[in-house]
Amino acid sequence: MGVSLKDVAQRAGVSIKTVSNVVNNYPHVTPQMRARVQQAIDELGYRPNLTARHLRKGRTGIIAFAVPELGNPYFAELAGAVIDAAAAHDYTVLVDHTAGLRERELLVSQEFRSHVIDGLILSPIHLENEDLLARQETSPLVLLGEREYEAPYDQIAIDNVAAARTAVRHLLDLGRRRIAFLGSRTSRERQPAHLRLRGWREELAAAGLEPDESLVVATDGYGRGDGAAAMAALLDRGERPDAVFAYNDLIALGAMRTLVERGLDVPRDIAVVGFDDIDESRYGAVTLTTVSPDKAAIARLAVDRIVERLGGGQVSQPQRIRPGYRLIVRESTRTGRTGP
Amino acid sequence: MGVSLKDVAQRAGVSIKTVSNVVNNYPHVTPQMRARVQQAIDELGYRPNLTARHLRKGRTGIIAFAVPELGNPYFAELAGAVIDAAAAHDYTVLVDHTAGLRERELLVSQEFRSHVIDGLILSPIHLENEDLLARQETSPLVLLGEREYEAPYDQIAIDNVAAARTAVRHLLDLGRRRIAFLGSRTSRERQPAHLRLRGWREELAAAGLEPDESLVVATDGYGRGDGAAAMAALLDRGERPDAVFAYNDLIALGAMRTLVERGLDVPRDIAVVGFDDIDESRYGAVTLTTVSPDKAAIARLAVDRIVERLGGGQVSQPQRIRPGYRLIVRESTRTGRTGP
Repeated sequence: MGVSLKDVAQRAGVSIKTVSNVVNNYPHVTPQMRARVQQAIDELGYRPNLTARHLRKGRTGIIAFAVPELGNPYFAELAGAVIDAAAAHDYTVLVDHTAGLRERELLVSQEFRSHVIDGLILSPIHLENEDLLARQETSPLVLLGEREYEAPYDQIAIDNVAAARTAVRHLLDLGRRRIAFLGSRTSRERQPAHLRLRGWREELAAAGLEPDESLVVATDGYGRGDGAAAMAALLDRGERPDAVFAYNDLIALGAMRTLVERGLDVPRDIAVVGFDDIDESRYGAVTLTTVSPDKAAIARLAVDRIVERLGGGQVSQPQRIRPGYRLIVRESTRTGRTGP
Repeated sequence: MGVSLKDVAQRAGVSIKTVSNVVNNYPHVTPQMRARVQQAIDELGYRPNLTARHLRKGRTGIIAFAVPELGNPYFAELAGAVIDAAAAHDYTVLVDHTAGLRERELLVSQEFRSHVIDGLILSPIHLENEDLLARQETSPLVLLGEREYEAPYDQIAIDNVAAARTAVRHLLDLGRRRIAFLGSRTSRERQPAHLRLRGWREELAAAGLEPDESLVVATDGYGRGDGAAAMAALLDRGERPDAVFAYNDLIALGAMRTLVERGLDVPRDIAVVGFDDIDESRYGAVTLTTVSPDKAAIARLAVDRIVERLGGGQVSQPQRIRPGYRLIVRESTRTGRTGP
């Protein structure tokens, strides 16, 4: 470090103002001049002070990304994608942790730290619609995740019902009929698992099967331990599904550990499908079939919406945006055998 | 939200000033008064505006935690511990991502965003000693991780050599003799893996064995894919270790996937020990024996040093602090059989 605009100007044989114009991407700089300054920048390893640039515009250059669980690789991987997407706009990312608590979600979406952040990407769990409608803060807010709100904010989420139906369809195509759902939340209808559970019900019904609610297991959280406990609870009450569709990969991976302990084979005895496509799902003793949301697209769309709203130009209406997803078939459902 | 100091004062029947004194933990408040105000706070669900409190002291109330890899669960789990430790001091945490690049590490340790953060906890990979000596910024900095610097900053890391020796000792005690090390970096002596590799060498030597450098495999990164590739490379060149000590859990888990694909049994054919004790290591088809650094202690010590230095009172000299660790034995080394 320690290379200044002045050093670059001297090396390029131009004025400091010219270097500044190039660095700030101002117009009215000839391509020749731009190339000459860029060469000096490259040779000296100069890095513009982005913070100062943002500050001049009355911005901090920081976007907050608030996630319910940093320990969940899905959010860690998504955070990596958000950091990359933000860097493309010279923004850095403050990763915040809400623990999925309404109180914390409310705090980050309200005035909290507005002196520090220019915009917020929030993946809420318990935030209520009324909380959003009551929001005073005017900085850009983009919502991610499965909860759907009737509030004037951009919402970015894959079609969770359709994605869940794709996963269940895959299991039906393998001949499986007793398909358990692990990771519901029985207490509240608008919980995150709601849409994926609906997809499970709809696809079974579409296949002419009665959704068997005794194969639905609620969990306290979304971790490996929750999945292991849910699978054990299901087996302990005498249920023997031939397939499991889990709310997420961590629950699926925990369930697979329980199946190992009970001497059951995946996929022969029980096929398993997860959701999220975390890196870990590719490396177990039995790799995991999973629904893979397009994390890069989610991150890019979210950052683009924030940057657009900060830009001050023509701003589009808040939208519901549906990034893509795909089912990735791995060993946990790769079987020649069909079910009963 | 929406509950003010005034509301609390009215409920408690005291002055706003008294409530403020309690909230800010000022002395000269009687225990009786404190209890009375606290009861009103609890009843109303009042939350003090921490940001404003910090701002009054010329602080932002934010500590940055800069990690090389957010996608590595070790750092995600450590970040969770840092967030908890910081919350105990009314600090929030900005998680920053350096990708292990010297340039980024330099940037976060220098002036970058000093208008926003009060202190920095940095886990460097490629930062050089000279970078630290040249640091102009005066905000508190605490260094984590295996690199040891000769610079006036607090450094917090477990004794990596001793921890690695413990892991190798465990494998020797099982009768294993051909113990591979996965995850070295051959190019530079001061790389993170250096200390753990030294522990591997020292413990083998102490057992009267010649460290077999053909069983040391360098990796490009520290992920599952790197471990899978390293294990495959070792087997492909005809080496057949009876145990693997991996630089971290992700490399160990990747290596175990390769062993499954090659039809080798863990632990019978090859016992495996990792390092970090990430949650995932408890849920595979074969659970992973690993060195478990005391993440909660690391986080608490780091935050305490920052807060002490921000406090403005008597400040202790920069120290090297060694938190504890322990070996957690799981299925990947649980075998009655002894080696050759």
